[in-house]
Amino acid sequence: MNPRNRLNFSGGPGALPECVLQQLQQAIIEVPGVGLSILGISHRSDWFAAVVAELEANIRSLLGLPTGYHVLFLQGGATQQFSMIPMTLLRGRRAPAEYLHTGYWSGKSVAEAQREGPVRVLWSGEQGGFRELPTVADLDFSADAPYLHYVSNETVEGLQFHRLLGRDDVPRVCDMSSDFLSQPCAAERFSLIYAHAQKNVGPAGVTIVLLRDELLKDVPPNLPGYMDYRNHALAHSNFNTPPVFAIYAVLLVTRWLLDDIGGLEGMAAINQRKAALLYAQIDASDGFYRGRAKPVDRSEMNCAFNLDSAELETRFLAAATQAGFSGLAGHRAVGGIRASLYNALTLPAVEQLVGFMADFQHRESRHRTENSGLSSSVSPSS
Amino acid sequence: MNPRNRLNFSGGPGALPECVLQQLQQAIIEVPGVGLSILGISHRSDWFAAVVAELEANIRSLLGLPTGYHVLFLQGGATQQFSMIPMTLLRGRRAPAEYLHTGYWSGKSVAEAQREGPVRVLWSGEQGGFRELPTVADLDFSADAPYLHYVSNETVEGLQFHRLLGRDDVPRVCDMSSDFLSQPCAAERFSLIYAHAQKNVGPAGVTIVLLRDELLKDVPPNLPGYMDYRNHALAHSNFNTPPVFAIYAVLLVTRWLLDDIGGLEGMAAINQRKAALLYAQIDASDGFYRGRAKPVDRSEMNCAFNLDSAELETRFLAAATQAGFSGLAGHRAVGGIRASLYNALTLPAVEQLVGFMADFQHRESRHRTENSGLSSSVSPSS
Repeated sequence: MNPRNRLNFSGGPGALPECVLQQLQQAIIEVPGVGLSILGISHRSDWFAAVVAELEANIRSLLGLPTGYHVLFLQGGATQQFSMIPMTLLRGRRAPAEYLHTGYWSGKSVAEAQREGPVRVLWSGEQGGFRELPTVADLDFSADAPYLHYVSNETVEGLQFHRLLGRDDVPRVCDMSSDFLSQPCAAERFSLIYAHAQKNVGPAGVTIVLLRDELLKDVPPNLPGYMDYRNHALAHSNFNTPPVFAIYAVLLVTRWLLDDIGGLEGMAAINQRKAALLYAQIDASDGFYRGRAKPVDRSEMNCAFNLDSAELETRFLAAATQAGFSGLAGHRAVGGIRASLYNALTLPAVEQLVGFMADFQHRESRHRTENSGLSSSVSPSS
Repeated sequence: MNPRNRLNFSGGPGALPECVLQQLQQAIIEVPGVGLSILGISHRSDWFAAVVAELEANIRSLLGLPTGYHVLFLQGGATQQFSMIPMTLLRGRRAPAEYLHTGYWSGKSVAEAQREGPVRVLWSGEQGGFRELPTVADLDFSADAPYLHYVSNETVEGLQFHRLLGRDDVPRVCDMSSDFLSQPCAAERFSLIYAHAQKNVGPAGVTIVLLRDELLKDVPPNLPGYMDYRNHALAHSNFNTPPVFAIYAVLLVTRWLLDDIGGLEGMAAINQRKAALLYAQIDASDGFYRGRAKPVDRSEMNCAFNLDSAELETRFLAAATQAGFSGLAGHRAVGGIRASLYNALTLPAVEQLVGFMADFQHRESRHRTENSGLSSSVSPSS
């Protein structure tokens, strides 16, 4: 097969739309109308100021974000946000921030918050192996918490909240790294949303933060300059040299979402069809494929599943690679198989995957039947 | 003119070599042999592990770095290093770290260090408008300092140290953001060297840090995870998702330095010729162009100069833009003209610039002579 056609089901960095790649390819040599490579354009140029302004406007438009929010483009990934958030909102506070421990990534966020102030883990799925999310009845949110923090989609375990959590009188802070701009998200109900780009909206190297102005009214003194949101807000994400290329790539993705996909409603419809197709294949496999997550908490972004044995999973992954699929190995923390269905992964790619899964199951089942037939016919003479 | 031929004298992000741009352009669509866009390749892939390993080896080879150093690729720019360094080496210490205040960027580094612990500004050029660097006699380094920090090249003012500073018994920490890999630098005499990529070695979005293992033996507790060098060292710059594209670009630049340029000696020879040509033009202009920095402290990377008036400078910049030169306006903090001569800016580009400068001076001088001739011939009848 043409290697360019490898289908990228990676957990991230994920694929980007072909039309975005083509524009980026051109920009590497020359940004249209500017006469310079995008890699050598000044971050203080009018061109780049217009890129940031349009990107911010596109994100506001896609999410229907009301006024009163900053939209920032930072470095350091979600990991740095795990620290910046409690440095800003928890340091020096007595009431604990409330965190949900729903999987690998929210676990990291809890550990970082605990360095900065008191944390109450409101619910943990650790004992259950992170196969489900809390129900409404499981959660007793406090009115005193400086904020509630949760991860909307756990990429490793394939768990996604399909509802809004928390109380309107406590700031909601949400790591949407792996489902940002994959569907509408009631952004106006959150005080702070953050997402690194490399799942649905761009290459690794830029992290998007939306936060309410009022969160910056009472920031602790003497934060390191880069860790102080106010610096980035004041400078319109140009406090120091921002990752120009990655930010431009995110702009192109938002244009694609607005112009070609029909906004977040359009994107959600496509993403739902992709996920439904894959989970239907799993559910129709008579247990040959077994979804990791409780069905009601299944992620539309990351479908984690297992086969009967580690050996069979290894065989599945080898055959999938051979067939042109890429990135299907589960996260090293949990193993198994994971198919990630980020925005740029197309419905035809999922159709090819479910076709491959059906074939693989068919071959294996025939193989087993033949082997068991063989062994029963051989056994008398052994 | 063909806009692709615009000559990029920007203070940064700077130009990258044409051969690097071509390889990056291909990688946007498909990394050779991998079958995926570089923007969708997993940072946990064997391919990317090999990129990091080769890049690290290339940097060690270019600098002749002995064992006992970590080579890290981080996010957040030099600005984040301004904080990470004192968080690691100064927090909780009683003896002040020694800083030199030689210009715009070292001033930022002092302000960040002061948040973390005691700082002694050993020398400041502020009163003199940052037109020169300290002499050997100006500096009295203390043996008790946890470290000495200085900026090897001040991009805004065009000042560069052409000697090693400090004592061998106090860790040298140096911001080489704007001259890293432009020349040999006696790296083994430093305990920590850091440089963002976007001047000489790559696009904005990655920062290179070399640091001696022993600096990490006594790190203060509870640093934010991303700000703790140990996490990055342990994970070989894969603590969280690194900026894959920017790191690959830096790898390509190091290959270019090694294979096409003849290493740092070769690069230094080219950079010296470029700078000599430009400063010679300034010095031969009878004061029409006036270098900002004291000649002995002139930077080979950034040549900052002035013309007689702001109005004449505006005219110069307009004519230069018209002639196809880009990025010649001085930094907003000081104004004037600045020609940055980073690695990828070629000698022929500098030849074109000095040719333009000679023409501009000639035209202006003729214009003045004609005007003064006109006024003297007119004056009798007035």
